[in-house]
Amino acid sequence: MRFSIKEIASKMGATIVGDDSLFVTRLAPIAQASKDELTFISEEKYFPFASTTHAKVIIVESCDPLPRDKTYLVVKGNVRQYLPILLMLFKPSFKQIDKMIEDSAEIAKDVHIPKSCYIGHDVKISKGCKIYPNVSILEGTVIGENCTIYPNVTIREFSKIGKNVIFQPGCVIGSDGFGYYTLGGKHIKIEQIGTVVIHDNVEIGSNTTIDRGAIGDTVIGMGTKIDNLVHIAHNDLIGENCLIIAQTGISGSVTVKNNVTIAGQVGVAGHLTIGENVIVAAKAGISKDLAPNQKYQGNPAQPMLDEQKSKVYVRKLPKLFERVKELEKMILEKNKGEN
Amino acid sequence: MRFSIKEIASKMGATIVGDDSLFVTRLAPIAQASKDELTFISEEKYFPFASTTHAKVIIVESCDPLPRDKTYLVVKGNVRQYLPILLMLFKPSFKQIDKMIEDSAEIAKDVHIPKSCYIGHDVKISKGCKIYPNVSILEGTVIGENCTIYPNVTIREFSKIGKNVIFQPGCVIGSDGFGYYTLGGKHIKIEQIGTVVIHDNVEIGSNTTIDRGAIGDTVIGMGTKIDNLVHIAHNDLIGENCLIIAQTGISGSVTVKNNVTIAGQVGVAGHLTIGENVIVAAKAGISKDLAPNQKYQGNPAQPMLDEQKSKVYVRKLPKLFERVKELEKMILEKNKGEN
Amino acid sequence: MRFSIKEIASKMGATIVGDDSLFVTRLAPIAQASKDELTFISEEKYFPFASTTHAKVIIVESCDPLPRDKTYLVVKGNVRQYLPILLMLFKPSFKQIDKMIEDSAEIAKDVHIPKSCYIGHDVKISKGCKIYPNVSILEGTVIGENCTIYPNVTIREFSKIGKNVIFQPGCVIGSDGFGYYTLGGKHIKIEQIGTVVIHDNVEIGSNTTIDRGAIGDTVIGMGTKIDNLVHIAHNDLIGENCLIIAQTGISGSVTVKNNVTIAGQVGVAGHLTIGENVIVAAKAGISKDLAPNQKYQGNPAQPMLDEQKSKVYVRKLPKLFERVKELEKMILEKNKGEN
Repeated sequence: MRFSIKEIASKMGATIVGDDSLFVTRLAPIAQASKDELTFISEEKYFPFASTTHAKVIIVESCDPLPRDKTYLVVKGNVRQYLPILLMLFKPSFKQIDKMIEDSAEIAKDVHIPKSCYIGHDVKISKGCKIYPNVSILEGTVIGENCTIYPNVTIREFSKIGKNVIFQPGCVIGSDGFGYYTLGGKHIKIEQIGTVVIHDNVEIGSNTTIDRGAIGDTVIGMGTKIDNLVHIAHNDLIGENCLIIAQTGISGSVTVKNNVTIAGQVGVAGHLTIGENVIVAAKAGISKDLAPNQKYQGNPAQPMLDEQKSKVYVRKLPKLFERVKELEKMILEKNKGEN
Repeated sequence: MRFSIKEIASKMGATIVGDDSLFVTRLAPIAQASKDELTFISEEKYFPFASTTHAKVIIVESCDPLPRDKTYLVVKGNVRQYLPILLMLFKPSFKQIDKMIEDSAEIAKDVHIPKSCYIGHDVKISKGCKIYPNVSILEGTVIGENCTIYPNVTIREFSKIGKNVIFQPGCVIGSDGFGYYTLGGKHIKIEQIGTVVIHDNVEIGSNTTIDRGAIGDTVIGMGTKIDNLVHIAHNDLIGENCLIIAQTGISGSVTVKNNVTIAGQVGVAGHLTIGENVIVAAKAGISKDLAPNQKYQGNPAQPMLDEQKSKVYVRKLPKLFERVKELEKMILEKNKGEN
Repeated sequence: MRFSIKEIASKMGATIVGDDSLFVTRLAPIAQASKDELTFISEEKYFPFASTTHAKVIIVESCDPLPRDKTYLVVKGNVRQYLPILLMLFKPSFKQIDKMIEDSAEIAKDVHIPKSCYIGHDVKISKGCKIYPNVSILEGTVIGENCTIYPNVTIREFSKIGKNVIFQPGCVIGSDGFGYYTLGGKHIKIEQIGTVVIHDNVEIGSNTTIDRGAIGDTVIGMGTKIDNLVHIAHNDLIGENCLIIAQTGISGSVTVKNNVTIAGQVGVAGHLTIGENVIVAAKAGISKDLAPNQKYQGNPAQPMLDEQKSKVYVRKLPKLFERVKELEKMILEKNKGEN
């Protein structure tokens, strides 16, 4: 599927500055966009990306400060207000379910599909995969070699799965992210048109959920292992060789660098970055960026030693209250004695 | 299905005061009961409901203080001790699974049911619904127009679903609530005979679980959006246009008023009320009612500013300990100097 | 399946001390091993088990201090380094999925299997069981009488289920535990060759996950009730008549004794023991063993009264800061007055 940028410009009432004969395939965030994708700059802080993005076409409010070798769709007013139009335009038009294995699915010869599985339109399943019963793989998903997909797993539309990935039972890949805008007190769904990319050698725990990107992808890096009942929200970028323990929840648009270990029941607020080699203790609440190569604990999380000191001080509080009482008594008695 | 109140009274050894020719369809809590339902008053604090309930028939220990225009089943001893008898009596007798689409199911013409789905007895699915594979919809459930039900969703018996409701993959509607009574150290299951009511424009996240009511219904109000891996327990009454973020758990019989936002990994204790427009920060633990129009944080949750102050004071504790030490030294030295 | 200990010794380069004609069926931890199972002692603290284990054959580094009536496989160097060899050796070779109900499955006559269910090789389902649609029961699982298995449940290989067990929708039994060893920064999967044993009268909540043992079993004791979205990790031994409330997570190799109540969203660190009749309040974080017959609260959890006192002291902190400020002023003014 591809879209003429003339058509897109016309839907937004935008002016084209540059090559108006271009076509784009998808809408993507500027840091992730490939050369055939359309992207956008909604805030000044993204200006530097105009030079580094692979995208050829960028939606902007003004192209004056930006490099000349790109094509711009210049809109009136704020770029963000055009997102609903763009999302409707780029929302994939899912195909009707016809059969349990759709005709256009490509399944390697050595792969057995149990009868209760659904394999959607244009799905590709590579050799060596082991598919258990009651699995649903929706339209356009591509699955690399030697993956194991246990029962009751759902992989939603257009997910891209590497090699040797293991999906424990009941996990969900590519559910819609939790994205709404509120208008007159009502929450209106923001179409979630991105997808999920899972690299080689990842394992996903049972009943864990990984949401698709709103625009652009949610990514799980090579060799990362995710435990049961974990929540990974839209547009999270999880690095390589991470360990994410059970019942942890990571809000949207978080970047987790490589070799990070996050213990159980941790919560991470949105739009943060967790540095390389960080270790987060169980039940921590992360509310700001974490510098690399350190251990963190607590809610809000702080470096582990600081948190442990805080806890020790809290435990000593009853004694402190007593000591202050003593001091008060001493001073008051002294004052009395002197009067 | 309907039951003669004569028959019910006889099973409980109750005396009928009022019209003994009445019939009832179901057992319901007094605040929710409709005119054809049987209800009960087990504590004095529910006396005022006797005037306002739609129910015509009420089980009571004594009807002396209560209005004359109702019919009463007067039992000996405590009303609660009759609940096991009532639950067994009103427990729906589920029908045997015969086919993947039962003959009595009514499915709108434009709705396609994939082969691996189960559509139970007397289920009604309205036009415009999109049903994905491996979905199970059990007996008596009614689903409004234009709902989307992703793979591996379970909707259990007698659920009532509005229009435009979206069920992300793997969510569970109408599982039994966690209700037991303990007898000689053993936990005996309390039959969960209520159901789940989900109003229009709700979205339910992937692998979220919503338990059916014990008696009466668990209700999700219009326009409310629930994220992934959330737990909603039996008889919760969630208002309209609420946002409930991932991994939050709400214990049984909680009332959440309209326009409430509950961030991720929050826990709410049972039988509480959360006022309108409340915002609860992530990871809070709510252990008492929350007044409307405020922000809360912490465990136990308190108004956000108070909680943030507490946190600041805890961070300053090491300095406080030092200051007290200094004071002690000053006083002791002074005393020494004076002696 | 059984293995000659000669063959096993040869694969490990071990010397047999004792009866070299023995056969074993499985690898098991020393406290759980039955007489036909192979076990091992990797640390001195397990020496006393050599006298009490039912196993006849034990892998050790040296058998000098150990009783003479057992047979030993004496290895060079650390026992633990041979685990990968042993795990590969004892890893069950799962059978190919052929049909929706495999020929070798034994299903009681009165049990109806809906068309979309998968019943694996050698599975046994006893009389009185009620199986809902989209259930997957994998190879070798044995299910006792009168169990109820709601839709979209997965029970993985070789699970042993007692009588009257209820599985709410979407729960997962026997997923792989989260076990890896790290080599050059990469996490290598440790094969999880144990299984799950669930005793009579247990109930498992919707979308709850119970991992199989790494070596040996994860066990849920008779009469225990587990709520929704709970995570039970590999080799947990949960006692009888426990109540484990929603969204609690128990790390690996934890022992929970009988009659324990763990409220919602609690986290338990690995390898701990929680004593009989313990009650843990919601959201607690348990980081050390808990003595029996007490109530605990907080993170890290402490006896409930201590925790509540700590909380009270924290709430009083603003006043304490003021009092200390007052004292400082008094002393300074006094000093000034005296100078």
